[in-house]
Amino acid sequence: MQRRHFTRLTGAGFFGAALSGCAVAPAASARVISGGTRPSGPTSTLRIDGRRLEARMRELARFGANAAGGIDRVAFSQADLDARAWVRGLWTEAGLDTSTDVAGNLWGRRPGTDATAPPLMLGSHIDSVPGGGNFDGQVGSMGATEVAATLHAHEVQTRHPLDFVIFPNEEGGKTGSRALAGQVERMELDIVTASGHTIGEGLRRLGGDPARLAEARRNVGSVAAFLELHVEQGGVLDTDGVDIGVVEGIVGIKRWTVDVVGTTNHAGTTPMDRRSDALLAAARLVDAIHTTARSIPGRQVATVGRIAVEPGAPNVIPGRATLSLEIRDLSMEGIDTVFAAIARRAEAIGQETRTTLSFERFYTSGAAPTHPHIRDVVEMAATELGLSNRRMPSGAGHDAQSIAVFGPVGMIFVPSRDGVSHAPEEFTEPSDIENGANVLLQTLLTLDRSPPGGD
Amino acid sequence: MQRRHFTRLTGAGFFGAALSGCAVAPAASARVISGGTRPSGPTSTLRIDGRRLEARMRELARFGANAAGGIDRVAFSQADLDARAWVRGLWTEAGLDTSTDVAGNLWGRRPGTDATAPPLMLGSHIDSVPGGGNFDGQVGSMGATEVAATLHAHEVQTRHPLDFVIFPNEEGGKTGSRALAGQVERMELDIVTASGHTIGEGLRRLGGDPARLAEARRNVGSVAAFLELHVEQGGVLDTDGVDIGVVEGIVGIKRWTVDVVGTTNHAGTTPMDRRSDALLAAARLVDAIHTTARSIPGRQVATVGRIAVEPGAPNVIPGRATLSLEIRDLSMEGIDTVFAAIARRAEAIGQETRTTLSFERFYTSGAAPTHPHIRDVVEMAATELGLSNRRMPSGAGHDAQSIAVFGPVGMIFVPSRDGVSHAPEEFTEPSDIENGANVLLQTLLTLDRSPPGGD
Repeated sequence: MQRRHFTRLTGAGFFGAALSGCAVAPAASARVISGGTRPSGPTSTLRIDGRRLEARMRELARFGANAAGGIDRVAFSQADLDARAWVRGLWTEAGLDTSTDVAGNLWGRRPGTDATAPPLMLGSHIDSVPGGGNFDGQVGSMGATEVAATLHAHEVQTRHPLDFVIFPNEEGGKTGSRALAGQVERMELDIVTASGHTIGEGLRRLGGDPARLAEARRNVGSVAAFLELHVEQGGVLDTDGVDIGVVEGIVGIKRWTVDVVGTTNHAGTTPMDRRSDALLAAARLVDAIHTTARSIPGRQVATVGRIAVEPGAPNVIPGRATLSLEIRDLSMEGIDTVFAAIARRAEAIGQETRTTLSFERFYTSGAAPTHPHIRDVVEMAATELGLSNRRMPSGAGHDAQSIAVFGPVGMIFVPSRDGVSHAPEEFTEPSDIENGANVLLQTLLTLDRSPPGGD
Repeated sequence: MQRRHFTRLTGAGFFGAALSGCAVAPAASARVISGGTRPSGPTSTLRIDGRRLEARMRELARFGANAAGGIDRVAFSQADLDARAWVRGLWTEAGLDTSTDVAGNLWGRRPGTDATAPPLMLGSHIDSVPGGGNFDGQVGSMGATEVAATLHAHEVQTRHPLDFVIFPNEEGGKTGSRALAGQVERMELDIVTASGHTIGEGLRRLGGDPARLAEARRNVGSVAAFLELHVEQGGVLDTDGVDIGVVEGIVGIKRWTVDVVGTTNHAGTTPMDRRSDALLAAARLVDAIHTTARSIPGRQVATVGRIAVEPGAPNVIPGRATLSLEIRDLSMEGIDTVFAAIARRAEAIGQETRTTLSFERFYTSGAAPTHPHIRDVVEMAATELGLSNRRMPSGAGHDAQSIAVFGPVGMIFVPSRDGVSHAPEEFTEPSDIENGANVLLQTLLTLDRSPPGGD
């Protein structure tokens, strides 16, 4: 299990050979000064406290714990409020100046030496889906909290102010982070969430003020960088034994409804060569979607998750089939290229099956690439920590994609066992969480010296 | 429109050249003696009265007529009872001795010259599906009635007794004909039909006695032959411009539920090459079913009419797919051959998609081939009447398949416009119905001279 390689064991001595004239001090030192401008220089020897992090992951899991071993800490529930208060306490203990904005985002500010520098942001969410697990959002929230505690314990002084953040209602619509991007629509506030409260009511419960939501909006350039540590929610890192995923971005998504029209007919009296079978056409399209998405270079994915036929009896040739098509890619142009190839195949399938196939797009979510410089820094940090790593897209959505609207973002993935997510079985090894938090810390310190825009 | 060739116009003179030393008399003769043993000799010059037949088709259509131009003459409804009474009147007028058996079958007996000969049977059904059309069942019922009227008008004497029959509840389970085969289960009598009456109540409404249903059962050999004229309910004759279908039999049917098990997964975080997509496997199976059924010589048909996937969301790779498979063929071995080939393809699909596919059979209906001698006679009759004809399976079920359990059967198809059936748009040209009734008459007369068993 090479991936289970544990930095706590390989530890501080590992980088001795690589250290070369850079302002770092051993972890035992009382004060570590971050600084310098070298973008790809070696990382600090500072390490987070893996045991403390593991203990806090366990403590957080108590809020909203359910009998299945998972959590029901849906946004705006009492468990969510209690957990936020607990996090706020940890942050105060770590010397952060805490506050809640009008959008219910919980902030923890740590001043930098340069009061004019835009802040470096880091954080995630602590709300869960109903019947969720203990890692989605929580790894990033506790990882950031552990970074704050480590900086505090070692009295590290950064140039940039640091803004630690817990975004509310990620699972129910990324409300907190989208409010920062100015994307929350007035009507969304009336949506009833899994907590039983509307989003508007929920924000008030957190100390926000939905009537003043527009004030939460951040300007482009108002943040030096945002970093989010998160579990992969897929099985790539786990299966391939890779420690760290260097996220290239959150994929864009387009979804279509495909309508296939043939001719309903008696299955007994209609010879095979005289059919206009909508399901046959749909089946060939499903296969074509799969083979097309695989045949084009890239890591795009195309999925048919839903299908229905009419009339739907064993002895009737379906006259109509309706299916969904979803394509995801880091590039919206990539999505369009795959779709165009699929549409060409659909044309041919329609002709060979005597059916008509039409596509209607019903959903679009823009791709949010991470900043190339932050990718490089994450990759360097992981490598210098002795962690195997791989560049990869994030197929799922995250708060980081909202922040990407107004600033450079980066994401760090740690393995999800068997790729399971949004279920009590969701699991990430404590050693992987510790690895991720150390990459987060080192990335932060490097960006402090060398931010994306070079401010 | 070569198929629209109308025998009323080509008429009696057509066979002059073919007549050769056989006991026939011109239609103008008061008495036509059927007889002789030549199995493939020319037909009689006797013809049914197309205008009377057309008028009676229109009259029958009044019983249960609905606003859509079709009929709601469901079995056991008042319209069904009224129509039966009307038919009974026509039969009495045609000299038949009418009766109703315990299974609600309406009989019209016409004695033959040989009291020891088993009867020749002919007839069909007059009940419809809800919202049905005016031709399914009615063409055969009125065709047989027209044969009775023609024999009566021309005082034709047959050797075999003739049994005209209207079977009750064909559309709701072929109750009347299946009772003759001893196939009606006790529990079926409690099924509530579209009329609102149970089958048991319905049989009593027709004058039957469900408590004595077993008495309806006929022994093997108790009938010399059964003939049924019917609309094709498919589009082959209409599309290809063929006048008469020489039915080779009613196809057997087997139906399976196919269960495909893969792995439910996040459509965004699971790369294409790591999926175990149950819908992809199901789609390839649908295509394989179609291509396999077409690649094997024969006229078997294989249909997937139903499909469902779980969980069924656009952004989730389906972990499970369930579909129906139906195979029909004139030979049960033929069905098994096609199924075996499909099962082999399923095995390969399971391997290539990392899914498991399993089949569970839930329905079997035995094939009912028509008697080869009767096919020959039908074909000869059609040919000698100057009607284009083609041998073909019946993909739909008919009362004839019940009768095949205890005696030789034959069926004659006439075209269904555009293959439409079980709908108000169901239509067969009056000329085609007349052609069919003439083939029915000639086949009957030839079988009277030369029955299948040679009795």
